[in-house]
Amino acid sequence: MMGHGIVLGDNQYGKAENRIVRIVRDTPRHEIRDLTVSTCLRGDFAAAHIEGDQSAVLPTDTQKQTAYAYAKTALDGPIERYALALARHFAADVAPVRQARVEVAEHAWQRASDHAWVRAGTQTRTAAVTADADGRAWIVGGCRDLVLFKSTGSSFAGFLTDEYTVLEPADDRVLCTSLVGRWRFATDDSTVDYDAVWAAVGAALVETFAELDSKALQQTLFHMGSAALEACPQLVEVRLSAPNIHHFAYDLARFGIANAGEVFRVDDRPYGLIQAAVRREDAPDPGLAWAAFG
Amino acid sequence: MMGHGIVLGDNQYGKAENRIVRIVRDTPRHEIRDLTVSTCLRGDFAAAHIEGDQSAVLPTDTQKQTAYAYAKTALDGPIERYALALARHFAADVAPVRQARVEVAEHAWQRASDHAWVRAGTQTRTAAVTADADGRAWIVGGCRDLVLFKSTGSSFAGFLTDEYTVLEPADDRVLCTSLVGRWRFATDDSTVDYDAVWAAVGAALVETFAELDSKALQQTLFHMGSAALEACPQLVEVRLSAPNIHHFAYDLARFGIANAGEVFRVDDRPYGLIQAAVRREDAPDPGLAWAAFG
Amino acid sequence: MMGHGIVLGDNQYGKAENRIVRIVRDTPRHEIRDLTVSTCLRGDFAAAHIEGDQSAVLPTDTQKQTAYAYAKTALDGPIERYALALARHFAADVAPVRQARVEVAEHAWQRASDHAWVRAGTQTRTAAVTADADGRAWIVGGCRDLVLFKSTGSSFAGFLTDEYTVLEPADDRVLCTSLVGRWRFATDDSTVDYDAVWAAVGAALVETFAELDSKALQQTLFHMGSAALEACPQLVEVRLSAPNIHHFAYDLARFGIANAGEVFRVDDRPYGLIQAAVRREDAPDPGLAWAAFG
Amino acid sequence: MMGHGIVLGDNQYGKAENRIVRIVRDTPRHEIRDLTVSTCLRGDFAAAHIEGDQSAVLPTDTQKQTAYAYAKTALDGPIERYALALARHFAADVAPVRQARVEVAEHAWQRASDHAWVRAGTQTRTAAVTADADGRAWIVGGCRDLVLFKSTGSSFAGFLTDEYTVLEPADDRVLCTSLVGRWRFATDDSTVDYDAVWAAVGAALVETFAELDSKALQQTLFHMGSAALEACPQLVEVRLSAPNIHHFAYDLARFGIANAGEVFRVDDRPYGLIQAAVRREDAPDPGLAWAAFG
Repeated sequence: MMGHGIVLGDNQYGKAENRIVRIVRDTPRHEIRDLTVSTCLRGDFAAAHIEGDQSAVLPTDTQKQTAYAYAKTALDGPIERYALALARHFAADVAPVRQARVEVAEHAWQRASDHAWVRAGTQTRTAAVTADADGRAWIVGGCRDLVLFKSTGSSFAGFLTDEYTVLEPADDRVLCTSLVGRWRFATDDSTVDYDAVWAAVGAALVETFAELDSKALQQTLFHMGSAALEACPQLVEVRLSAPNIHHFAYDLARFGIANAGEVFRVDDRPYGLIQAAVRREDAPDPGLAWAAFG
Repeated sequence: MMGHGIVLGDNQYGKAENRIVRIVRDTPRHEIRDLTVSTCLRGDFAAAHIEGDQSAVLPTDTQKQTAYAYAKTALDGPIERYALALARHFAADVAPVRQARVEVAEHAWQRASDHAWVRAGTQTRTAAVTADADGRAWIVGGCRDLVLFKSTGSSFAGFLTDEYTVLEPADDRVLCTSLVGRWRFATDDSTVDYDAVWAAVGAALVETFAELDSKALQQTLFHMGSAALEACPQLVEVRLSAPNIHHFAYDLARFGIANAGEVFRVDDRPYGLIQAAVRREDAPDPGLAWAAFG
Repeated sequence: MMGHGIVLGDNQYGKAENRIVRIVRDTPRHEIRDLTVSTCLRGDFAAAHIEGDQSAVLPTDTQKQTAYAYAKTALDGPIERYALALARHFAADVAPVRQARVEVAEHAWQRASDHAWVRAGTQTRTAAVTADADGRAWIVGGCRDLVLFKSTGSSFAGFLTDEYTVLEPADDRVLCTSLVGRWRFATDDSTVDYDAVWAAVGAALVETFAELDSKALQQTLFHMGSAALEACPQLVEVRLSAPNIHHFAYDLARFGIANAGEVFRVDDRPYGLIQAAVRREDAPDPGLAWAAFG
Repeated sequence: MMGHGIVLGDNQYGKAENRIVRIVRDTPRHEIRDLTVSTCLRGDFAAAHIEGDQSAVLPTDTQKQTAYAYAKTALDGPIERYALALARHFAADVAPVRQARVEVAEHAWQRASDHAWVRAGTQTRTAAVTADADGRAWIVGGCRDLVLFKSTGSSFAGFLTDEYTVLEPADDRVLCTSLVGRWRFATDDSTVDYDAVWAAVGAALVETFAELDSKALQQTLFHMGSAALEACPQLVEVRLSAPNIHHFAYDLARFGIANAGEVFRVDDRPYGLIQAAVRREDAPDPGLAWAAFG
């Protein structure tokens, strides 16, 4: 494609982090939807890269306009369905596009009146949908900033040691994480009750974190993911990424003060980072579900 | 104090942002307290600055140790009381210290089990207490990251115009802010029910924001502060700092789509910044309540 | 002003963080100016707060428009002069305004060609100018994110101890800070060579930090400020705010590895926070130089 | 592996963002190395996840200790070599580990004296090395926060349009990005002059950005990557991720002020996001070079 044996490899482009608020005001009791939307297109864009020929390139500005337009016309349900509609539009209606990926984060609000709200929680609901020009689609739901803490029922012992190991085993420690979760749906059937899945996964994650007597964050994650899959037959895989936010018991004995797991210092960095996928044995191929620019 | 007529002016020093978690585990139903604590001392530290003589300087490391120790011994109640105890200790027990200021932020958690929690909300409770070596103290409660949104009941019209004014009046707009509030207590009487004041101020702020038919964010703030003072006789002043997080109705008419206050673009920057204090006419002098290094 | 003896206290309003880029393209060798500009007005705005009457309120949107207009008409010199022009405009030309404050941050770029640049450094130049309706003005220059590090020539010993002191004296430690500096000009005479002052203060701060054999960060700050005042007769006061970014020697002896001040762990939080002002004995009253909403 | 046909999928774990400073003080002219290091291990850790059996798990704390130890023993050259040594240690010396990945960011400092520095630039040098238990390794160099701006020599026209396209073609626009670049080395031969490659790639990227008459950011990226490959025979692929940081010409005509590409508003979000890989036609398979938890 060019002299010197140099060629274009993977590529994609889009508009990232459109901040969109949608108010439903059909009745005096308004509803609010608060989204951050990113779009991304893939296809044969070699001419744009090599010669600067834009004739196949739908501008990122147009992608933005479309995301706003669809917030009016296609956001009467869960974000999975909005993302699917938007991704399918790009993949089906824009000729050069072979694949379109739409990522949405929905920020939570708690109602204060018929038309007022207080921002709720740090937890954010996410969706990532990829559609291709052949009519296929891959749907992923998720959460981020789900911060969990337990004050007992967690240990870490019996681990491998080497010449750099100084950590003491802990038979009762604090466990804290800020979870990023993503769950892959079995099909692109858009009649799935995505809100019910969101609620069921959230409940399974929190309940398992709280109740499992943890021998490691790895074990906790595996069983959180398993519980989510067991609760939701619509899902085939759950991927969890979990920083281990370290809490260190503070040495108060120097001041004659007992500290039986009561006072902790919290460190920002470094943090353990534990990542695990849990899936059904017979899960279909992920296709483009996780696709990103690696 | 030095050649050339150059002298030391205002100065203070301390340890900022100690991250402290305190678990109360006296019964199987644990309690969690999650604090960020900053301490700061003032006094005659001229020798430390000019000659490097540290004999009057209590290290910031010691301030940190003390904050952790007091998390065990003096955190069985609201953060106002913990901050007061810590500030009084520095001001009374460390000879060179003339004034000590302690600022605390408490992060919210929602219970998931007897010993597990999910991080709750973006709203953070704050306290700032200054004590002096003469036994006086000034107590300030507060909040930050209280994000409020209303979808109607807000206008902005009839404003002053000049040659640079292009803004159109709005008779029904969206209003959104992320509030920082601070409220000054009348006295340093530590028997005040600080938790009750926190709840009452919060309710007054949210309710007034939601219900007042707003002609400007200035008006909303004044009446929010007034409502808080009316609800809490223990308070004499409320200071509010409120970014106007702009939401712009998106132009969908270009695409043949009606947008009657339904779809908005949210901008990060710039933002309006409205700041106002509301106080009782007979409020005592603020003394060191607001004191900071300007 | 209202029932129940509740009155409006301090108040101000403006538009914060306008992101403005100005290209000078009079010749093929372009120049870039990259600013973040905040404006803020004070005056008698009681009616706006209490009754919602906006007739004296110049919208924050208008302030924004004006900041952009002045980026074309009044930004042919240093930011101090741009801020002064803008502040004087608001204070002199907008009747209800009694005081106007303009804060500017200028982001640094390094030239790569006649019309291309690479973002340079983390250090940002700042200016804050307050003007009043009586024609007076107070001018402050400054810097932020000036990150300094020294690997020797710093100690901390002979400090005050109490029952919570466990820190060991250090006779040779690492010192690191991220400096915020502000320097007050003697007059509002706008013919001052602000660029020369900026360069001279920066050189004095860095050179003193590097060369002073430091017995504490307090001492370092005092002598940095003194050096800046000695270098610049145009200045009457320097205020410095300096986090002590802690570096802890890492215990490698456990692994049979010597560590003679070679390998350090850096902590994000907590950090010491040392703040000091240095001024001329005969400095005029600061007036509104440091004015902010405390 | 578990009832219900649920199995463990991809997984990895490590310690993220160790903040390490290394001072070389063999002579009075010290050297500083300032790193953020993340490690990550992969292997058969099913027992840890499913049953909580930690016997094959080297703690993340041990990984941290090792990163610090190697900062003394293996950081006498470029970060690529340090990362390679550390990754090879984990993959070769810790039995259960099949693959180890080490990511390093090096923060830049500018010398102010023999033992003092000022933090330099926003640009950060990166390296990511993956080693496996069979002795193979994949080496990637990179940069991030390389912020580039050009005031002319950039256009965007002739693009595809649809019913949502309202963007006007631009024949002379501002172009600004904050580049993340990663470049893959042909081999794991650690005698490569990594510092020379870093300098050559940086020069190629900046020079091409500055000089290419750009018809789109896509074209600019492709030719930046090509130039880097042409300058460095040691490299086989360059991956670039580039936000298009939008600058909008400000409408000053409303105020009777001409604005011929002189005053711009900068938006934080949304931003275009353009990502492209450029590689040699005969590049070897990337293997684990880009491996991450997707």
